[in-house]
Amino acid sequence: MKLLRYGPLGQEKPGILAADGTIRDLSAHVADIAGDAILPEGLARLAAIDPATLPVVEGSPRLGAAVGGTGKFICIGLNYSDHAAETGATVPPEPIIFMKATSAICGPNDNVEIPRGSQKTDWEVELGVVIGKTAKYVSEDEAMDHVAGYVLVNDVSERAFQTEHHGQWTKGKSADTFGPTGPWLVTRDEVPDPQNLKMWLDVNGKRVQDGSSKTMVYGVKFLVSYLSRFMSLRPGDIISTGTPPGVGLGMKPPVFLKAGDVVELGIEGLGTQRQVFVQA
Amino acid sequence: MKLLRYGPLGQEKPGILAADGTIRDLSAHVADIAGDAILPEGLARLAAIDPATLPVVEGSPRLGAAVGGTGKFICIGLNYSDHAAETGATVPPEPIIFMKATSAICGPNDNVEIPRGSQKTDWEVELGVVIGKTAKYVSEDEAMDHVAGYVLVNDVSERAFQTEHHGQWTKGKSADTFGPTGPWLVTRDEVPDPQNLKMWLDVNGKRVQDGSSKTMVYGVKFLVSYLSRFMSLRPGDIISTGTPPGVGLGMKPPVFLKAGDVVELGIEGLGTQRQVFVQA
Repeated sequence: MKLLRYGPLGQEKPGILAADGTIRDLSAHVADIAGDAILPEGLARLAAIDPATLPVVEGSPRLGAAVGGTGKFICIGLNYSDHAAETGATVPPEPIIFMKATSAICGPNDNVEIPRGSQKTDWEVELGVVIGKTAKYVSEDEAMDHVAGYVLVNDVSERAFQTEHHGQWTKGKSADTFGPTGPWLVTRDEVPDPQNLKMWLDVNGKRVQDGSSKTMVYGVKFLVSYLSRFMSLRPGDIISTGTPPGVGLGMKPPVFLKAGDVVELGIEGLGTQRQVFVQA
Repeated sequence: MKLLRYGPLGQEKPGILAADGTIRDLSAHVADIAGDAILPEGLARLAAIDPATLPVVEGSPRLGAAVGGTGKFICIGLNYSDHAAETGATVPPEPIIFMKATSAICGPNDNVEIPRGSQKTDWEVELGVVIGKTAKYVSEDEAMDHVAGYVLVNDVSERAFQTEHHGQWTKGKSADTFGPTGPWLVTRDEVPDPQNLKMWLDVNGKRVQDGSSKTMVYGVKFLVSYLSRFMSLRPGDIISTGTPPGVGLGMKPPVFLKAGDVVELGIEGLGTQRQVFVQA
């Protein structure tokens, strides 16, 4: 299933993408794509519905973040060996974990605000893992049972805020709209191998990231298990698993975003996003 | 006002501490001590109620975290010069910011779990600032208008997870129950000077932290303004402002918590907490 949330910011309704490409309204069945709705039993209930029987949503509504009620937006740093190299870092012997403020989450095609005082706003296409069942001290073997599905994330980053204003990285990752998430929560059954997905990102029509989750250092199973040693993962939490090479910081000379720039990105099977960058 | 949440975990009801020391039930007036209830107009509405007219809550119910719906639990690192010194660090030229997982939040007297594999679980008495109105790019002069009040926090920390497992600090700050918060949200009007509050913490009856918010490096006004440049602060968000000297890591030799240890802490005017540490 491709679950989604549509409508104005803060008033999103639950929906599903039907086989004919239309959005169908799920409001009669769940209040939100969040909480109980994305537990294994919640997803099983939704899977039993024939989308063709649901009301078509007319027009082209705004898409909201694909998941509601996200309590934690956990990111993994330097998780692609070639990306680590381009930023002058080495792959760490254990995953680097940082948090993005949940208030940064926005829809996949919303405008992204360049923060006041920013000189180094950058992009990062990432595979997001959506938790669908509480995970605490789970093994790698059990890990996938706790995953509801996957979502495309742009881990927008302000590099000066991240590293030049004294610890920690969260400072450069948390501005409003720095977390476009969607268009869809694609359930796990539709993504048989999360470690073999093409991913790409264009800035003003020029391809800058062109990678695959194949070169991810710490994979999804390992990350869910690893993180669950340090904190409990709960339904709706998102783990953004790091970015392949091609970020602005890694270019020679570095390139950063300015108002008016357009960023488009996608991951195989997870849909695409398009953001216009604006000044906050 | 001293607002609180009482009852079993996940089913907390809103309450208020009356002048006679009893807890009074606020359920007829607000759904939770969260969201709209702690906006300036929400607090004004509650302040107009005479607690003596509210139903007394009988017995000694469990207290939950004093604030519900916390979207961000933001912590400030090394914000007391003498604490920085004891950990071998220097005060940074700008505040260090990290996030504690919101899933770590628990009641003030709940058992605290020592995570599996932990060797270095430590304590930190902290002044928590509760946001009561969205703050984005606010000046220091405006900052206090965005503060609903204050809350006592124990920023429980696992030092090996924090610094010996490769970035970032969030890894050692986020285990379930690592964020006892309460007993009360004390509204701003009752704390005329947040920069002059005695604070203390005892381990097994022995005083180990005995400080004052007077020695805080970056004060509340500055922090609200500073943070609002990097992320928007929203009602229910908590800023935990750092700890004075006396943590286990700073002792010679270092001392860490083990199952059965009892930690008691308090801040002048904000009440006290008592936790028994147990093995997860």
